[in-house]
This record gives sequence, C-alpha cells and structure tokens, in this order.
Amino acid sequence: MLKVRLPLGACARSWKSVRMASCGVARWNPLANKVALVTASTDGIGFAIARRLAQDGAHVVVSSRKQQNVDRAVATLQGEGLSVTGTVCHVGKAEDRERLVATAVKLHGGVDILIYNAAVNPFFGNLMDVTEEMPQTALLTKAVVPEMAKQGGGSIVIVCSVAAYSPFPSLGPYNVSKTALLGLTKNLAIELAQWNVWVNCLAPGLIKTSFSRMLWEDQAREESIKAAMQIKKIGKPEDYANYITGETVVVAGGTPSHL
Amino acid sequence: MLKVRLPLGACARSWKSVRMASCGVARWNPLANKVALVTASTDGIGFAIARRLAQDGAHVVVSSRKQQNVDRAVATLQGEGLSVTGTVCHVGKAEDRERLVATAVKLHGGVDILIYNAAVNPFFGNLMDVTEEMPQTALLTKAVVPEMAKQGGGSIVIVCSVAAYSPFPSLGPYNVSKTALLGLTKNLAIELAQWNVWVNCLAPGLIKTSFSRMLWEDQAREESIKAAMQIKKIGKPEDYANYITGETVVVAGGTPSHL
Amino acid sequence: MLKVRLPLGACARSWKSVRMASCGVARWNPLANKVALVTASTDGIGFAIARRLAQDGAHVVVSSRKQQNVDRAVATLQGEGLSVTGTVCHVGKAEDRERLVATAVKLHGGVDILIYNAAVNPFFGNLMDVTEEMPQTALLTKAVVPEMAKQGGGSIVIVCSVAAYSPFPSLGPYNVSKTALLGLTKNLAIELAQWNVWVNCLAPGLIKTSFSRMLWEDQAREESIKAAMQIKKIGKPEDYANYITGETVVVAGGTPSHL
Amino acid sequence: MLKVRLPLGACARSWKSVRMASCGVARWNPLANKVALVTASTDGIGFAIARRLAQDGAHVVVSSRKQQNVDRAVATLQGEGLSVTGTVCHVGKAEDRERLVATAVKLHGGVDILIYNAAVNPFFGNLMDVTEEMPQTALLTKAVVPEMAKQGGGSIVIVCSVAAYSPFPSLGPYNVSKTALLGLTKNLAIELAQWNVWVNCLAPGLIKTSFSRMLWEDQAREESIKAAMQIKKIGKPEDYANYITGETVVVAGGTPSHL
Repeated sequence: MLKVRLPLGACARSWKSVRMASCGVARWNPLANKVALVTASTDGIGFAIARRLAQDGAHVVVSSRKQQNVDRAVATLQGEGLSVTGTVCHVGKAEDRERLVATAVKLHGGVDILIYNAAVNPFFGNLMDVTEEMPQTALLTKAVVPEMAKQGGGSIVIVCSVAAYSPFPSLGPYNVSKTALLGLTKNLAIELAQWNVWVNCLAPGLIKTSFSRMLWEDQAREESIKAAMQIKKIGKPEDYANYITGETVVVAGGTPSHL
Repeated sequence: MLKVRLPLGACARSWKSVRMASCGVARWNPLANKVALVTASTDGIGFAIARRLAQDGAHVVVSSRKQQNVDRAVATLQGEGLSVTGTVCHVGKAEDRERLVATAVKLHGGVDILIYNAAVNPFFGNLMDVTEEMPQTALLTKAVVPEMAKQGGGSIVIVCSVAAYSPFPSLGPYNVSKTALLGLTKNLAIELAQWNVWVNCLAPGLIKTSFSRMLWEDQAREESIKAAMQIKKIGKPEDYANYITGETVVVAGGTPSHL
Repeated sequence: MLKVRLPLGACARSWKSVRMASCGVARWNPLANKVALVTASTDGIGFAIARRLAQDGAHVVVSSRKQQNVDRAVATLQGEGLSVTGTVCHVGKAEDRERLVATAVKLHGGVDILIYNAAVNPFFGNLMDVTEEMPQTALLTKAVVPEMAKQGGGSIVIVCSVAAYSPFPSLGPYNVSKTALLGLTKNLAIELAQWNVWVNCLAPGLIKTSFSRMLWEDQAREESIKAAMQIKKIGKPEDYANYITGETVVVAGGTPSHL
Repeated sequence: MLKVRLPLGACARSWKSVRMASCGVARWNPLANKVALVTASTDGIGFAIARRLAQDGAHVVVSSRKQQNVDRAVATLQGEGLSVTGTVCHVGKAEDRERLVATAVKLHGGVDILIYNAAVNPFFGNLMDVTEEMPQTALLTKAVVPEMAKQGGGSIVIVCSVAAYSPFPSLGPYNVSKTALLGLTKNLAIELAQWNVWVNCLAPGLIKTSFSRMLWEDQAREESIKAAMQIKKIGKPEDYANYITGETVVVAGGTPSHL
C-alpha cells in the first residue's frame, strides 16, 4: 500500500483535531490518509474525538469492550460518510491490544495517531484494579510506537481528567490514577522524542454526561462538587469548546514547565 | 451595522486559530465576521497569529509601534486577500490603546478577540520598565472588555513565554514579567467570566527568530541555552506546530489546576 | 498507659523534624512522648529521619524488609541513647503492616507520626510491581489513621522523589509511581483533614548514595544526569540541609496551589 | 570583628527558623552569631519570624516604615532578652535599603539572612504602585548579596502569599504581584547559586489577622472567601504551624519542579 505521508505535520494536526472535537466547524482534511486509533470511543468524549478525527480526513479505528457498542458507533459514523472501522478492545488484554494495532495496519498500512481515553475508566473498584491503568497505557503505547516509528513519527494523546489536579470528592483511586497519567505523559514524551512521537495529555473538567451522573445527580451533591471544583456551573457537552479559561498552553518542545 | 454573531462559539475558535498559526492547513471560516485585535503583530509570532485569524475569516487589526511596519504587514496580508487593517499602537500609551479599540469598533462594529503579544517585549531595560508590562496588559484588557461584553462575550489570549517557568539565563526581568502574566491570566479569567470573556495564555518556547538571536548566536551560547531549557535542538518557526510535547491541556472551566 | 499529648502541635513538629534530619543541630525535645513509625528506615534517608525524630524526643519504630538490617539500625540508635525499637515490615504484606502498627500501639500506646519512605523503592522491576507502591501507601495509611484519630490527630509524610516532576532518565516506572504519590498526598490530605491528620510529601533530589549509584557511577552518566536534573553538582548527604533553593513552601491549609 | 561562621549550615537553619515561627518550641541556638534582616517585621507574621530568628540565636534587625512601630517591636523583643535592633526602612527608597544593610554590617559585621516580607504590602493601590514590589525585592537583594558573599553564602526568604496561586477575590494587583515573586524566587535562586546564596519563598494562606480583616469581616464575605480558597475555616495565627497539608516540599538543589 502506498501512502503519501507528512509525518511530522500530522502530530500537531491530530492534537488540534482532538481539541476541536464537537466544535461543529466546517469540513477540512488536514488528516487525509492518517490512521488513528481511539480507545473507549463508542460513547461520550471518546466518540466525539473519533468523529472529529474522521471528519478531518483520518481513517479511524474505534474500540471499546463490547461488540454491540462498537457496531453501533461504526454504523453511526459510517452513516455520516466517514472512514471508520472498529474492533473490540479491552486495553488490559495483550491480545486485544495487538488486534487493535493489527486492524489498523492491515486496513490502512500503519498508525499515526493514538488517542488513549482514560477519562471514562470506572470510578470505583479497588485500588489494585485502578493502578492497572498506567501500565495498560504504557503497554498500548509500546504496541503502537513501532508502527509510528515506521512512518517517521506520530502523536499520542492521553485523555485524562482535571481530577488529576483537583480531586473529585470520594473518588481517590480515580483521581490518583489520573495524576499518574500526568507523569506517564511527561516520561513518554521524553522517551519517545527520538522517534518523533509527541505525547500530550488532555484534562477535561466535569461535564454533565451519563458517566459523571453520580457526581451531580442531586442538588446537594451538585452544589458540593461545584464548590470543590471551583466552577459556577457544570458544563454540558455542547459547552465543551468554551471551557478553556485561565489556562496556559506551553508550546516549547518539552522545556520543563509545570507538571 | 448589523452582524450575525455566535458569541460563545467564537471564543474557542479564536483560541484554536491561535494555536493553528503557521500550520498551513486548508482554508475554512470559523471566525467569519469576528473582529480580532493583535498587538505586536507586524513580524514573527504576532504576524503569524494575525494571518491565521484572518485566514479563518476574522477581520483583523494589526498593530505595532512603527507606522512603516504596520504598513508593510497590512500590505502583505491584504495582498493575500485577507481582511486586515492596521494602526500604530504603543500599548503603554492610553491614547494608542483607545485608538486601537476605536479602529476596530469603527470599521467592524465591535471586538471579539484580543491577542496581546508580550513574547517580543524587549529583553533588556531596567526592572521598572519591564514591570510596566503587566499593567499595560491589564489596561488594554480594560479597554477591550466593554466592547466584548456588548457582543455577549469574547476571547483574550496573552502570548507569554516558557521563560515564565524555565528562566532564560541572564534575562531575569523578562522572565519574571512573564511569570506575572501567568498570574494575570488566572485573575482576569476569574474576573471576566461574568461577561463570558475567556482568558488564556500561550507560552511559546525558544524558536530561532531574529528576536531570540542573542540567545543562540554563537555555538557555546546555543549549547548553554539548550541545556538550560532541556531541549535537544532549538526549533525553527516552521517546526512550531510540532513543538507541543509532554504537556497537559486543561479544559475545565477554570477548575484550579497547575499555575 | 497515660500520656500527655498535644495532638495538633505534634504535626508541624514532626514535619519539621523530617526536614531537620541530618542537620546535626543541638538537642531539643519537641516530640517528647510522640510515637513515630518510619518505613525503609534502616539505611540512607529513612534512617536519618528516624534518628532525627528520636533525637527530638519521639519513640521511634524503625522497619525494613530484613531482620538483620532492622537489628543493626536499632542497635546503632539505641547505642546513641535514643528510644528506638524495630520490626521487619514489607509494606506490601497485610500482616506486616498490621504488626508494624501493633508494635507501636503495644509499646507506646498509639501512633502520632508515619513516615512512609518511598524514595528507595527499587528502581527497576516491571510496571505492574511498581504500581503497587501507591496502593501500599494507601493501605498503610489506612492501618495507621484510626490510631492517630484516637489521639486527636497525626502527621503523615510521604518521602517521594523529585523524579515525580523531573524524570530520572531511563527510570520511567520509578518516576511515574512517584508522580502518583503526589496525587495520593493531595487526596489523603483532603480525606483525612476531618481527623486532624495532615498529609504532606517530601521530594528529595539526587544525592550521592549507594542507592543512586547507578545514576552517577561513570563520568558520562553523571554529566548526563546533571544536565537532565539541571543541577551543577550532585549533592552529598551532608549537603542535604542546604539543598532547598528556588522553591515555594505553601502554608495554607490545603488551598489549591501547584500540584 | 572576629566571628566564627558556618556559612552553609546557616542557610537551611534560617529557612527552618522561619517555618518554626510561632511554634513555641524550646530554645536552641542554631543561628548563634548569624545576622538577620527582616522587613515589615514590627507586627504580624514578620514580627513572629523576627522573634523566632532571635530565639534561635541570631542578631536580628527589624524594620518597618514608622519609627514608633520599630521602637515598640525592638523594646518588646529586647525585653524578652533577645539580640534585636531596628531601623526605619521603606524598601522602595534606596537610602533606606542602604541604611538597613549598613546597620547590620556596623553592628554585627555582616548579613547572613534576609527575610523580605511581602505578604503585608497594601492590598489596594493602583497597578503601577503594586508592580514596584518586584523591583524593590530585587533591589534589596542586590544590596544584601555582596555582604552574604563576603561571608561565604547566605539565605534569602521571600514571604509571599498563597494568593500567588489561588487569587484572593477582588484583589487582582495584590495577587499578580505575588505571582511575580514566585518567578523572582526562581530567577534569583539560579543567579545567586554561584555565591552560595539560597533563595526560597514562603506562601502563607489566609489567617485571621488585622491585615486580612477585610476578607472575612462579615459572615457572607467569610463564606465566600473560604469557598474561593477551598478551606473549611480560616486559620488563627496560633494554628499556623499546623497549616501545611497536601503539600510537597522539594529538596533538590534547584531541579525544575512545579513553579
């Protein structure tokens, strides 16, 4: 299979596409011929990112743990004329990770972009389970990087949570595992720079989704979480694009900034 | 003058346009009918941002301290078919600030976006001069916010420097004034949220431009600055879009994260 | 057993004692009648902290994985006239955690201070092993907090590493597990405030010890690590007390600051 | 004048004394023969620090803008048997800065420690006034460093505010000037390392003092500020020593950590 690739250019563009998810802007094709894997992408923020990457021209492989959810997401996005396929993937299983990568390589000749969606990993569960998240992220990265290196580079975005910084009350294991992902991002960025693989992290705040329902389902709980997170109202998904404020984005090739 | 406006949507879009500057992607018009002021924009990063905002459909008012530089930038961008005008503006002068805002209001009926480019303020000069930067930014913001409020909201981006976090050697006053801008961003974001004005900061790293020449002009100095900033090579302007790595972008409505 | 306790006062004092470790200052007894558990404390920084707490008047229980190391440390410190006992403790084993706490309660009637020394956990090992560190810290905390609550409060200090922020090259799992401890500190501080248990973290930098030898054993490696950590020379243990510079210490009751 | 000095040891010890202020622990003399300048030290936190340094054995020079306040503070501390003198000092005036340093040199032969108390600079005033704080701090440092260098090193602590990170509502100029001091600390630490001068920052949170009265004087305002600062209650001065929680202290010779 012959592909014309712009290896470096793709990185920033995929990163940008992630942030543009759900903006609803007009079509353009900066990711034409790029191949993107998105985990936990049959619903919510993962689904929105997958759609955006496909709208930007990428071939997208969606995945989640249940076949019926994968089927539904693929059908929806194909119905919009997008280049989307899917496969079941439980990132904790080696064979699932391998199948995910192999699917992309077989269909599209390689992998340029990996979006690892850790925002929707279960809130509860015991500590031991939760700490598997970090190794799983590392292991999926390990499976993908050789394919990116073959293309001359790639872009990895870990979708984390603002709870990494400002803990969600009563969700300690979730919060701490997200903090660990901040460290993983920094370490992977340093290690993978030699292959022109950029690694960044997205920390979404609290949005009213079915996933976060338990945090705002009654009035008292909503007031308490708003105070804890220092926000005046909990965003709706459609507000998402207007939810960056008071932030600094560093564009500095890995120069130490804040954590 | 009658304008159809999408007050909130504009904010995230302008922010995104800033980050897309110099990406060279295909034309789209997410900022159609938006009005953007960009300071220190007749060269370098300011110019690149102004061009990108205009390519995205905005009416852009460029400015800098010298008429001939303004004329040259306006001619270049108008030659590319973009909606660009310009005015001389020394942000430290009240009448210049007022004229900048008035120009936008007169020509286009309002202001939606302000890009305050502080990255290229002089490296040297005495401490007292440098600390004027923060009040000037605040004063220009003050002049612009009423116009944004009339439109239902707006977006302000302060272009700062990674030196705010990792000091450039021997440039203490520059570095500290940039750190102050991080604080200003956070304070303005809180104060201006009531008018739907979002305030963010962009911290570019070291790039090989004429402005930064003194930091890398001889081999020894280049090695020393690369060690200080922990980068393997100093980026060129065209690398800029691939220069984000190891970073976390927080999209959380102002929830406390890192500074 | 009857003890006069100053429950709150003890917290700041234990914290201070940790930082005073190896300062070699004159004797005083701010921790008289306090009971302190210190893990991984038969050598290096853990041993220095245990000694300092005992010099400040506390009854100290040292521990590590090997009986002979415990015996040696106890003999040394008792030989200095200090109130020190010891027990073998592998923090990953529930029975060891329980025995550690039970030892303190049996001998001294309670626990006021816990120093969890995670700085010297193994550099290598696979990802899955390393991520046990965070749950182990949480589990030991869980075992200790009821005893602290009975006394009206207590103080927990997690000894982490600056690698949590600035990765040690090639030691990703170590680095990321330390980042996770930053998050754990923040979460525990919030959760345990209701029992007047303060939780803080100490992030030591690179010091020339036997533990860190692999990072500086040849000249090339030493130059590379100094560049990565941005230090002019690697500290010796005796420099330790003079090794805080460029830092901000926040004394603000948990107000969000940096991570 | 002949003095036996332990130049490096003094640094960490003065830093520790600052944190011990108001702890009320037993007397010891780690700062014997050391000379400390403390600005804005005739009341509140500055006074508490001055007292602690003197209790630890230092010769202390207190200062503030009014002669009668200086006289009162000196009389109080001398009445406690401490080695304290005083001089009027408005840090914004060159002759006052010089007199402050000269007083210490004349009486005690040098300067080892400078505590610059910026926490109590006026809340209000126009932006231009407030931004003088950073240059003033730099200028006083400049006046003191040659004296420290003569002694082989020294320690500077800038007393800032947690508002540098978490803005006090409606006090933008105060907040931003405190953020600038974080940057100044980092820059000075790098620049002054060559003379063994350590520079650190202390960021106290909100405490019920006369200075902060306007932030909590009525019930509604107190509730609002507690929510903004994410604290359950506003500390009293005597709680101060127990007010560190959820924090990480980095002891790493200047390795980049958080800002």
